Amino acid sequence: MNTNILLVGTGAVGSYYGARLAQAGARVSALCRSDFAVVKKKGIAVKSVCGDYHFKPAEVVRAISEYRSDPDFIIVATKVLPEIHIPDMIREKVLPQTSVVLLQNGIGIEEPVASAFPENELISAIAFISVSRPEYGLIDHKDYGSIRIGGYPSGSSSKIELLAGMFRKAGVPCEIENDIISARWRKLMWNAPFNPISVLTGGTDTREMIESGPTLMVARAVMEEVRTLAEKTGHPIPPSSIDTVINDTRSMAPTRTSMLQDYDQKRPMEVEAILGSAVRIAQRHAVSVPHIESLYGLLTLIDKKNRYLSG
Amino acid sequence: MNTNILLVGTGAVGSYYGARLAQAGARVSALCRSDFAVVKKKGIAVKSVCGDYHFKPAEVVRAISEYRSDPDFIIVATKVLPEIHIPDMIREKVLPQTSVVLLQNGIGIEEPVASAFPENELISAIAFISVSRPEYGLIDHKDYGSIRIGGYPSGSSSKIELLAGMFRKAGVPCEIENDIISARWRKLMWNAPFNPISVLTGGTDTREMIESGPTLMVARAVMEEVRTLAEKTGHPIPPSSIDTVINDTRSMAPTRTSMLQDYDQKRPMEVEAILGSAVRIAQRHAVSVPHIESLYGLLTLIDKKNRYLSG
Repeated sequence: MNTNILLVGTGAVGSYYGARLAQAGARVSALCRSDFAVVKKKGIAVKSVCGDYHFKPAEVVRAISEYRSDPDFIIVATKVLPEIHIPDMIREKVLPQTSVVLLQNGIGIEEPVASAFPENELISAIAFISVSRPEYGLIDHKDYGSIRIGGYPSGSSSKIELLAGMFRKAGVPCEIENDIISARWRKLMWNAPFNPISVLTGGTDTREMIESGPTLMVARAVMEEVRTLAEKTGHPIPPSSIDTVINDTRSMAPTRTSMLQDYDQKRPMEVEAILGSAVRIAQRHAVSVPHIESLYGLLTLIDKKNRYLSG
Repeated sequence: MNTNILLVGTGAVGSYYGARLAQAGARVSALCRSDFAVVKKKGIAVKSVCGDYHFKPAEVVRAISEYRSDPDFIIVATKVLPEIHIPDMIREKVLPQTSVVLLQNGIGIEEPVASAFPENELISAIAFISVSRPEYGLIDHKDYGSIRIGGYPSGSSSKIELLAGMFRKAGVPCEIENDIISARWRKLMWNAPFNPISVLTGGTDTREMIESGPTLMVARAVMEEVRTLAEKTGHPIPPSSIDTVINDTRSMAPTRTSMLQDYDQKRPMEVEAILGSAVRIAQRHAVSVPHIESLYGLLTLIDKKNRYLSG
């Protein structure tokens, strides 16, 4: 029998990986919100550097109660925002056999879901991809596309291997991480400085940030604080990785970060998942993170103002 | 004989105080730049809550070489920007009897002028005023208006008393500060957090900054760092003054900071005078100022981008 997957959230990232799993033969359904009507009618067109694909979800629903199947996997691919309460969104279909997959950004995002469903397998997934949703029902995949998955808080399982196998079958490079939280911290080394700074400096791309000495100094200090936090929580990252991240960023084509795209389009930014969680983890471990705290204090207000303008 | 004063820079602050000195009977001339033609032709209209006044400078010049008198005071009221080299601008008329007055924002701004003219009296002046220049030749004075003056690095003199006397004669509340640098640090307690934060948060007023908890935390941390720097350099400020500044700001009518007005109008911002100097003073005294450093790193880039857009 086909693997039953319910995809919650059909933004760019969720749609892309959901489409790939459908391509691999899974029965993938979609829980949509604002894009429901479009996806219900036309499905999702994936324009991709790896080949185009038309993703027609098995079911398209507006709420979990409309979903008629029993999911082997619920893949949560919404943004991580305080107003989105994930356990409430999915509770009705978290069955004994359901593995919950969090395909989202940020740090510390697993805890609320893990404590809501202590009997269920929780899988954490990190996407490395450049993809956008120019309009409802249309995904534009421009670059990269790998994914890392692992059990929370660590380890692997037969279902993680099943999921990895489906991704690979569809051509998605997928690595199973025994310590997925370390991988989250490593991704945060990039996200925590460059996403917020790109917004706070009036809309700058990666090249502009890297080339301004005093700005790069802030980015570096933020990375150092992330590294300290990771180490304090048992996920050491080698000091050399800061230079590696900076050099990689320097050699990238100039890019507008995803948070900047959110800002430009007056969408809520993942302030809490990217920075707020780090500040709270720092408080719990009595670690001083003044640079992260500064970005957090500024980004909170610009996000609030931006949401206000959007409403 | 009348006191001869050359006012260098006829922005809002310079024009206002220059006009008051003319009103008190001094012979005030003006060195103008972009507004030369207008000021030459029509002088400067001062619209003020304290009574309107028309300021007709004795001489209006484009360069110091055109100025025909011997100044008792040169009052420098330009912005403090790396591209404005004050000693070069005024050197030709810094005569033995000339006192140089710096009516400008920031910290550490006296040093370059003091070392360029070691034989001359240097007076430092701080304005507390809400005034703008809606157009060339027109000054709009909305609120406050006091000034503090003192000798650099400290002390007073008969010429400082003369200047204070003229201000008072024109109705300007003027205090002579024996330790004017302390007064600069106290003003920086407000300027260092609120000016940059208002710009970095996408254009927020004082009320919005004060009401956002995580943002106020950053402002408070910046104030704490300013206080530490002031103390390290021999100008202690009582810890309670942080709460005083915050409470005063909370009770103000919501205000857009002067730096935000500069940003909105794509004018250069005083990043170096307000933050860069503080960072360098911190380095010299081996004081850690991570919050100031964060604002500095961000503001440098947004200023650069803003200048680029303006050109």
